[in-house]
Amino acid sequence: MPKTFAERLAQAQQISGSLLCVGLDPDPAKLPTDIRASPSAPIDADALYAFDRRIIEATCHLAAAYKPQIAFYSALGAEAQLERSIRYIRERAPAALVILDAKRGDIGNTAEAYAREAFDRYGADAVTVNPYMGEDSVRPFLARKDRGALLLCRTSNSGAKDFQDLQVDGLPLYARVAQLAAQRWNEHGNLMLVVGATYPREMRELRQAHPELSFLVPGVGAQGGDLKALLAAGLDARGAGLLISASRSIIYAGDGSGAAIRAAAAQLHAAINSERGNFSASPRAQRSSTRS
Amino acid sequence: MPKTFAERLAQAQQISGSLLCVGLDPDPAKLPTDIRASPSAPIDADALYAFDRRIIEATCHLAAAYKPQIAFYSALGAEAQLERSIRYIRERAPAALVILDAKRGDIGNTAEAYAREAFDRYGADAVTVNPYMGEDSVRPFLARKDRGALLLCRTSNSGAKDFQDLQVDGLPLYARVAQLAAQRWNEHGNLMLVVGATYPREMRELRQAHPELSFLVPGVGAQGGDLKALLAAGLDARGAGLLISASRSIIYAGDGSGAAIRAAAAQLHAAINSERGNFSASPRAQRSSTRS
Repeated sequence: MPKTFAERLAQAQQISGSLLCVGLDPDPAKLPTDIRASPSAPIDADALYAFDRRIIEATCHLAAAYKPQIAFYSALGAEAQLERSIRYIRERAPAALVILDAKRGDIGNTAEAYAREAFDRYGADAVTVNPYMGEDSVRPFLARKDRGALLLCRTSNSGAKDFQDLQVDGLPLYARVAQLAAQRWNEHGNLMLVVGATYPREMRELRQAHPELSFLVPGVGAQGGDLKALLAAGLDARGAGLLISASRSIIYAGDGSGAAIRAAAAQLHAAINSERGNFSASPRAQRSSTRS
Repeated sequence: MPKTFAERLAQAQQISGSLLCVGLDPDPAKLPTDIRASPSAPIDADALYAFDRRIIEATCHLAAAYKPQIAFYSALGAEAQLERSIRYIRERAPAALVILDAKRGDIGNTAEAYAREAFDRYGADAVTVNPYMGEDSVRPFLARKDRGALLLCRTSNSGAKDFQDLQVDGLPLYARVAQLAAQRWNEHGNLMLVVGATYPREMRELRQAHPELSFLVPGVGAQGGDLKALLAAGLDARGAGLLISASRSIIYAGDGSGAAIRAAAAQLHAAINSERGNFSASPRAQRSSTRS
């Protein structure tokens, strides 16, 4: 059984044959109507679990990881349902990683409480973390060798440019975040960067600067990222080093049925692997692997 | 009844005669032993509520605001107890503001879910928010005129220097955060800045740049902030504009009894008001108010 987070990530990718991460973003405004007890019934906490179960059932053979967005559960008081969804992932996709998307960031003893929430209460393998408060706010999430922290670097939303792109001594802030994290906080090799799919130029620069790091890449599909460009920019010398996260484009696909969800996930899974194949065979990739 | 967040903040300060914000940080490692069912019993979710109740009872006549740190509740699955603690604050200190300390920060539709968590589920008056993801991650917390967002600016922890102090076009990043927030995001006057008590020089510069904003100032007491220096640096022309937040120095005071908690809160309450008195009477303050 793999011991470190990096080994577990590699195993999850190998067993699923995939870089795919399925985001569980059960937004009440978008849930398929047949999830409700009746068409006029409000979305309640149990509907979130029913929806997750449908998604997990449809994608468990395709996903290297699942990324539940805790905000949607917290808004509805659905903590128990989130725990059940994670248990269902463990049952149906035992090798898949569970990434709690929580964007935590707080001072030391508070960050330790958040780490207990993610790793002990929910049993997550990793959690997304915000860098703004610096080292002591990130360290508690990196203290366990078998769990990981996914540090926000260059995000895929429109507001990301407000601060992340500001130039600091000739480098944008997000590149400074990556630099400090890689040089000083990653002794256990369990730190990943979050890099939005909509910014392939930024991803290419980060890949060149950090050939050894893995990136979580949200924003594929509904947020408009171009798969080919992002794989060319982000894959490492082994044709890996990425988890490609899609949420809305998979979980709200078509009529919201399990079949539609499965088809959308299978399509993205195949598209990623087809591009990885092209990439591995290309001269550019061979040069990269010779260099490294 | 006051309608806007700014009016509610002013009313809370007036009724309590205070700038004091009591932080509810029920760290299981530090809870008084008599809170447990038996000395050997583990700290459970109900112990958090019992502890909060003791703190609220002891301080309800002294606090303009309470700031529960959600991490400690989330780690123990104590969401229901947090809801009860907030209801108890409403019962004992009806004018006091409730600030959910959650450091939220995520893309638009997720941030909306977090806003529903803070404002609808918990009924908080305000929530702390992380600026790293920019405008669309902050806006949903500012959309309701009667609720506020407290934006992390210069925090009081050791890691704060890692990114917040980096120079961007001649200004530290935290000052840029304050500038953008004040100029572009504060149409409803419901945005406050979080400025650590341990950095009076930074607070003075922020006060000069933003005479109209209120600051939440954590780090008084246990984190070593100097009360006199921070009031001189941070009070606005009216001798207000601050909420001074103390957690550990009050809630873990002395033997952990209600009497010890009350005494620590009363001492800080009196010290703040004594310094405010000195400040209002000083020529410097008079100059400031003439200028404004």
